[in-house]
Amino acid sequence: MFRRALFVGRFQPFHKGHLYAVQHILKEAEELIIVIGSAEKSHELDNPFTAGERMEMIRRALRSAGIDPSRYLLVPVPDVQAHTTWVSQVVAYTPHFDVVYTNQALTRRLFLESGYEVREIPLYRREEYSATEIRRRILEGEDWRGLVPKEVWDFIRGIKGDERVRDLARTDKAEGALGG
Amino acid sequence: MFRRALFVGRFQPFHKGHLYAVQHILKEAEELIIVIGSAEKSHELDNPFTAGERMEMIRRALRSAGIDPSRYLLVPVPDVQAHTTWVSQVVAYTPHFDVVYTNQALTRRLFLESGYEVREIPLYRREEYSATEIRRRILEGEDWRGLVPKEVWDFIRGIKGDERVRDLARTDKAEGALGG
Amino acid sequence: MFRRALFVGRFQPFHKGHLYAVQHILKEAEELIIVIGSAEKSHELDNPFTAGERMEMIRRALRSAGIDPSRYLLVPVPDVQAHTTWVSQVVAYTPHFDVVYTNQALTRRLFLESGYEVREIPLYRREEYSATEIRRRILEGEDWRGLVPKEVWDFIRGIKGDERVRDLARTDKAEGALGG
Amino acid sequence: MFRRALFVGRFQPFHKGHLYAVQHILKEAEELIIVIGSAEKSHELDNPFTAGERMEMIRRALRSAGIDPSRYLLVPVPDVQAHTTWVSQVVAYTPHFDVVYTNQALTRRLFLESGYEVREIPLYRREEYSATEIRRRILEGEDWRGLVPKEVWDFIRGIKGDERVRDLARTDKAEGALGG
Amino acid sequence: MFRRALFVGRFQPFHKGHLYAVQHILKEAEELIIVIGSAEKSHELDNPFTAGERMEMIRRALRSAGIDPSRYLLVPVPDVQAHTTWVSQVVAYTPHFDVVYTNQALTRRLFLESGYEVREIPLYRREEYSATEIRRRILEGEDWRGLVPKEVWDFIRGIKGDERVRDLARTDKAEGALGG
Amino acid sequence: MFRRALFVGRFQPFHKGHLYAVQHILKEAEELIIVIGSAEKSHELDNPFTAGERMEMIRRALRSAGIDPSRYLLVPVPDVQAHTTWVSQVVAYTPHFDVVYTNQALTRRLFLESGYEVREIPLYRREEYSATEIRRRILEGEDWRGLVPKEVWDFIRGIKGDERVRDLARTDKAEGALGG
Repeated sequence: MFRRALFVGRFQPFHKGHLYAVQHILKEAEELIIVIGSAEKSHELDNPFTAGERMEMIRRALRSAGIDPSRYLLVPVPDVQAHTTWVSQVVAYTPHFDVVYTNQALTRRLFLESGYEVREIPLYRREEYSATEIRRRILEGEDWRGLVPKEVWDFIRGIKGDERVRDLARTDKAEGALGG
Repeated sequence: MFRRALFVGRFQPFHKGHLYAVQHILKEAEELIIVIGSAEKSHELDNPFTAGERMEMIRRALRSAGIDPSRYLLVPVPDVQAHTTWVSQVVAYTPHFDVVYTNQALTRRLFLESGYEVREIPLYRREEYSATEIRRRILEGEDWRGLVPKEVWDFIRGIKGDERVRDLARTDKAEGALGG
Repeated sequence: MFRRALFVGRFQPFHKGHLYAVQHILKEAEELIIVIGSAEKSHELDNPFTAGERMEMIRRALRSAGIDPSRYLLVPVPDVQAHTTWVSQVVAYTPHFDVVYTNQALTRRLFLESGYEVREIPLYRREEYSATEIRRRILEGEDWRGLVPKEVWDFIRGIKGDERVRDLARTDKAEGALGG
Repeated sequence: MFRRALFVGRFQPFHKGHLYAVQHILKEAEELIIVIGSAEKSHELDNPFTAGERMEMIRRALRSAGIDPSRYLLVPVPDVQAHTTWVSQVVAYTPHFDVVYTNQALTRRLFLESGYEVREIPLYRREEYSATEIRRRILEGEDWRGLVPKEVWDFIRGIKGDERVRDLARTDKAEGALGG
Repeated sequence: MFRRALFVGRFQPFHKGHLYAVQHILKEAEELIIVIGSAEKSHELDNPFTAGERMEMIRRALRSAGIDPSRYLLVPVPDVQAHTTWVSQVVAYTPHFDVVYTNQALTRRLFLESGYEVREIPLYRREEYSATEIRRRILEGEDWRGLVPKEVWDFIRGIKGDERVRDLARTDKAEGALGG
Repeated sequence: MFRRALFVGRFQPFHKGHLYAVQHILKEAEELIIVIGSAEKSHELDNPFTAGERMEMIRRALRSAGIDPSRYLLVPVPDVQAHTTWVSQVVAYTPHFDVVYTNQALTRRLFLESGYEVREIPLYRREEYSATEIRRRILEGEDWRGLVPKEVWDFIRGIKGDERVRDLARTDKAEGALGG
């Protein structure tokens, strides 16, 4: 059993695949640091939610899933200009950790090059449980309710986050109008 | 009648649609702050002109249209890293204003969320009066003379701005050559 | 009773005055967001500890003081270039909050100007319970043990944080040597 | 007679010495670009006012002094990281100019090295007409009314700018308290 | 004969076309400054190698080609936010130079506008000797050995740079997975 | 014997102590990477010279001292926002190295924490051979000729670098004048 694991994501939004990953890691580590990456970004089509909103949705989902709040930490980490300094940025923003869980090739490579143990996360229905797929469904008015924990659905609807995603898409298309 | 209105654009370049918008707003507000957005950008295919060049073309066009120079202010505002801090950036760079005019969904949303009154601008021949369309015509050698005030046409031609746009496009295409 | 309060500090390091403040606020609010300000800074004489180290010391101190982990959130927030955009940066990094607790005149002013309710924290032995005083004592080899919770003392000693503070001071003085 | 002159300052705040400088330059140049430097800064002891507030006070003072609004332009320009790129930043943010007026040794040197003509401004009562002296008087509660145009005095009092300066000083001194 | 020439590239990676360019310029100039542009970038699909890695591969290739190390200088220069300040950034990072060699339209334009003499480089088999083409071949598993100097091939293979390029591509495609 | 050593300094300016250090390290390592730190800074009282000017003076001094140009590399490295990411910034900008030479406590600590071997440099007349002392003497018009290699003296005098230092000091003192 590891003392403390790290799990990095952008969580735009937090979905059921993320929740299963958290539950999986907490079987192998006493504590888990969940890094909310690209923390400075929001109100973009690929990054609609603020770090604070993502923190809120994750917290509600984990609470509802009965996960002990003393076993995980949420840490927003902004991007750095250069990929080579990103690992040291994560290290500076987080308490000490012993292992990194990721399925991303670049994240894996960067932590491995810095000497960390890196583990894969068993994927579960990855075609559907994908933030890209969820944002696409929101945008095109398709059903995305089943892909996220109920608390995330309620939260996003409560802040009219689905309207925001569609506004962001409209702005991109209308770039040639008066604002352009 | 509003005391002071805000109008945000990139003005790459300033065209007749922008001029009509200024004239429209000045019927509803005593003074107008024209924010030249993305002020730090230039020499890019989507942002060919510097903030200073855009200031010059707007000033000449408004003078020629007989608009009283005491009734408007031109304020270049650079972008910020995060959309959520952009409204406070605009507020810091400008004198006090009471209303925002915009047709952009994101600008509208951000100012509304910050508690400002936001108004739409009646569009006039928006297919043509579009900076994107003008840059496309410059690039492909089509006629764009009628889409901008005469002073803007003269100014851009005087600084060989049309050549610059075509150079910028060549650079993008030639990326694989020696510089790449 | 407030739903959720915000408390901003740099916590270089977290001391007993901070702990009393947290306990005071949790009597007036259901939940507390503790913002770890200047998160990007460390290894400076005024900012010796990383955001991750500060997070670790605060977490240990609050756990030892018996504070329910579901009632507070630790959020590192990096500085922004301009003071006027700082409030919106904090808002973007944190879940929704209803009230701000601070004794700092500038923090108070910035949140008040943005329309937030701001409350003072009753100070307790503020001459001693001061991060500046603690860093001074570490630097000059005086006793600082009683000024911080026991867990903070243990943690800083464990990472040789007191040696780091003295190294940082030596670097400043030796600026004229080879590195200069 | 020059076609267009440039005059750079931080205007924290705009005082009578600045006003005399503007009037002097407008005898030697048809138009004047007034660059509001360090535009991104505010709420600091040396930079209390936002670019927008400085723009407002300058505009009111020049209007009251009867200066034709078509003869000057106010342009806020943010700092750059490196002094060597600052001249090109100013050039990018402003319309074309032919001469630079400054009494600052560094500004003079940077523009001269870039090939610009640089002229001195005859100083008038420079011991008193100094932004540093005015901020000092505000801070210490001394009389500063006679050092700025009446409109600037009214504006700063109207936004409680003198209280802000004193708050900023308190924050610096109280650094060792809870926020520290 | 020029005293000192400047040659700007990203060298992702350094290929035979670059080597021929260096040899050509050294016939017309006593010394050559090779600027490694976008120095801060690496681990991106278009910028896979760090500035240090690029420096290493260029140095080995030039040594092997028998070029006198006292006749050239390698200078990594990071990007700036705005194109208009880029020339002054290059000037600040490099010793004095008399002429610029480039085939890029934008680089040519920016240096010409700043008053520098700019020369073209005779191209040699430019379809093949292209960094874009080499990265494409690495990505798709095609043969790229003949397009770079032998030392560059050995170096990139030695650091498993070809694997890195393919990892970077996988990350982009997998964006919708857990990390997304 | 080490394969390649790293030596970090700001070299404002490069003096005889730096030269002795280079000669010392080249007895213990085959090659030496000289990092020109704070590369983005210049025209400041503590950082008067650009990276390019520092590169020029070092190159001339090393050539005159008969040091083989194939045995050393000059690499300008700009500062990063956070000290914790600085080591990875240096690593990204430089070819591979095996050992770090420094007498600075912070540099030593940061490289040690990252797992590098760090060595001290035997100091030689360190009271005099100090960049701070040299800048002080330039400023106050005292003799500094003997503290730097002859080529550095000639170069600084040739670009009127001593005048620049005195101008920078005047600007700081005159801050209360019109520019202030």
